[in-house]
Amino acid sequence: MKLSRRGLLKDAGVFLLGTTLGGLSSPLSKNLATASTGKPEGIELPWPYKKLNPEVVAENAYVGYYKGACCYGAFEGIIGELRKEIGSPYIMIPTSMMIFGEGGIAGIASICGALNGASAAIFLITGGMEKEKREVAFALTKELFNWYEQEALPNYKPQKPKFEIVKSVSRSPLCHASVSNWCKTAKFKAFSKERSERCGWLTASVAKYTVEILNKHAEASFKPAHKLSPAVQSCRSCHDKGSALEDTRGLMDCGGCHFTPRTKHPKA
Amino acid sequence: MKLSRRGLLKDAGVFLLGTTLGGLSSPLSKNLATASTGKPEGIELPWPYKKLNPEVVAENAYVGYYKGACCYGAFEGIIGELRKEIGSPYIMIPTSMMIFGEGGIAGIASICGALNGASAAIFLITGGMEKEKREVAFALTKELFNWYEQEALPNYKPQKPKFEIVKSVSRSPLCHASVSNWCKTAKFKAFSKERSERCGWLTASVAKYTVEILNKHAEASFKPAHKLSPAVQSCRSCHDKGSALEDTRGLMDCGGCHFTPRTKHPKA
Repeated sequence: MKLSRRGLLKDAGVFLLGTTLGGLSSPLSKNLATASTGKPEGIELPWPYKKLNPEVVAENAYVGYYKGACCYGAFEGIIGELRKEIGSPYIMIPTSMMIFGEGGIAGIASICGALNGASAAIFLITGGMEKEKREVAFALTKELFNWYEQEALPNYKPQKPKFEIVKSVSRSPLCHASVSNWCKTAKFKAFSKERSERCGWLTASVAKYTVEILNKHAEASFKPAHKLSPAVQSCRSCHDKGSALEDTRGLMDCGGCHFTPRTKHPKA
Repeated sequence: MKLSRRGLLKDAGVFLLGTTLGGLSSPLSKNLATASTGKPEGIELPWPYKKLNPEVVAENAYVGYYKGACCYGAFEGIIGELRKEIGSPYIMIPTSMMIFGEGGIAGIASICGALNGASAAIFLITGGMEKEKREVAFALTKELFNWYEQEALPNYKPQKPKFEIVKSVSRSPLCHASVSNWCKTAKFKAFSKERSERCGWLTASVAKYTVEILNKHAEASFKPAHKLSPAVQSCRSCHDKGSALEDTRGLMDCGGCHFTPRTKHPKA
């Protein structure tokens, strides 16, 4: 069997072997067809999922945070557990690529790395190129973002914490706003060890909630639990798709950044 | 040789993937050691690089944008070309995972997807778990972000454009701000076909500049060409690491969002 598959792939300059346990699983088999056409584009999505223990993943993510920062911690916390539970194809992905999201990507403090890594994991597990698959993954991702903006976080305490950490509400998916809001509440500096520990707890919290969402999706019981606020809906009525202005797109909490509206803004 | 390698891996329940052309390349060989310890974490970074033609990658990215949106377009534009030029290990990564970054992640309009995808590619090609490797990748990524905030973009016109597109300066790495600033300049709506085309050009522009950076890095001639503005430096003197307040972190252009400072802000 392996020999015939190898023959099939020779034209594409590749040979491929699966796991000893599962043999060539479905996504890998699909990939063979792609590879044999000479247009390999990696393994097709979504990858297989098995319900995970959110607490175990949270602990993995916390450990991962201190190894490769927030984005890697969240991604490896989930994907590493699936690699352990399922094996192939999870054994093939270079999870350390996700270190790129550290501190809002390379320390730039744009998107929260834990959200970035968790969103990639959600897409790998539930998404795909087709519109219907994207919509499934994006619905889960939107719930994760709304939860992150609205809840007092971090809400997971690791088993062996370095410090006690207070919660704050970010009102933004951005590293910069999330960190600065926490600094104001906790009265610690942005480069303190306590702030770093807070981001470790937050990485664990994000990975945990992501797995809770994925588990619900796996048992076909997922429903969004967090909605955009009435204030955001009000902004969107003039600025979003199909509105008079339609000069913006997106689903972030407007007030997270626009805390001092332009003085010329008409009364909403 | 293959049989002995396979025997080595049997304990970890894994076979391996290689190319018929290159045999087992260095990153794959390194991975064997990891896999044989029972702690596989994907292939080690950085992955091999070969200087690419920026124009070719830009065209790939533009095509990729209309297939899988901005984040996928930038990532696949670069990685797909390396898959063609180098083969393994690039044949193994599921690039469609990067669709997750569409429209600032799932359409939320947080981080620009082209930046997100390009940053992941930079890390895969130049980064690694070790601090020194991260710093190499992060220096390239910071240059990409500063360029994106400061230049009039898009600055790459595809060979077969759908519309003519005017340029704008984003002053932000965020999808929302980047799109809204362009809408204001171009006088098109946020969900118009013209805005979508603009993001296609932008994806191509980001992929092109990323490859220019990577090529310079490959020939050891990379130097950052874009710096934080004096205005941002002024903000950082009170808010960044080691300052009196130290209540923020990050390297984004402050004025991109804080265009109406709090009225109580002291005169800087």
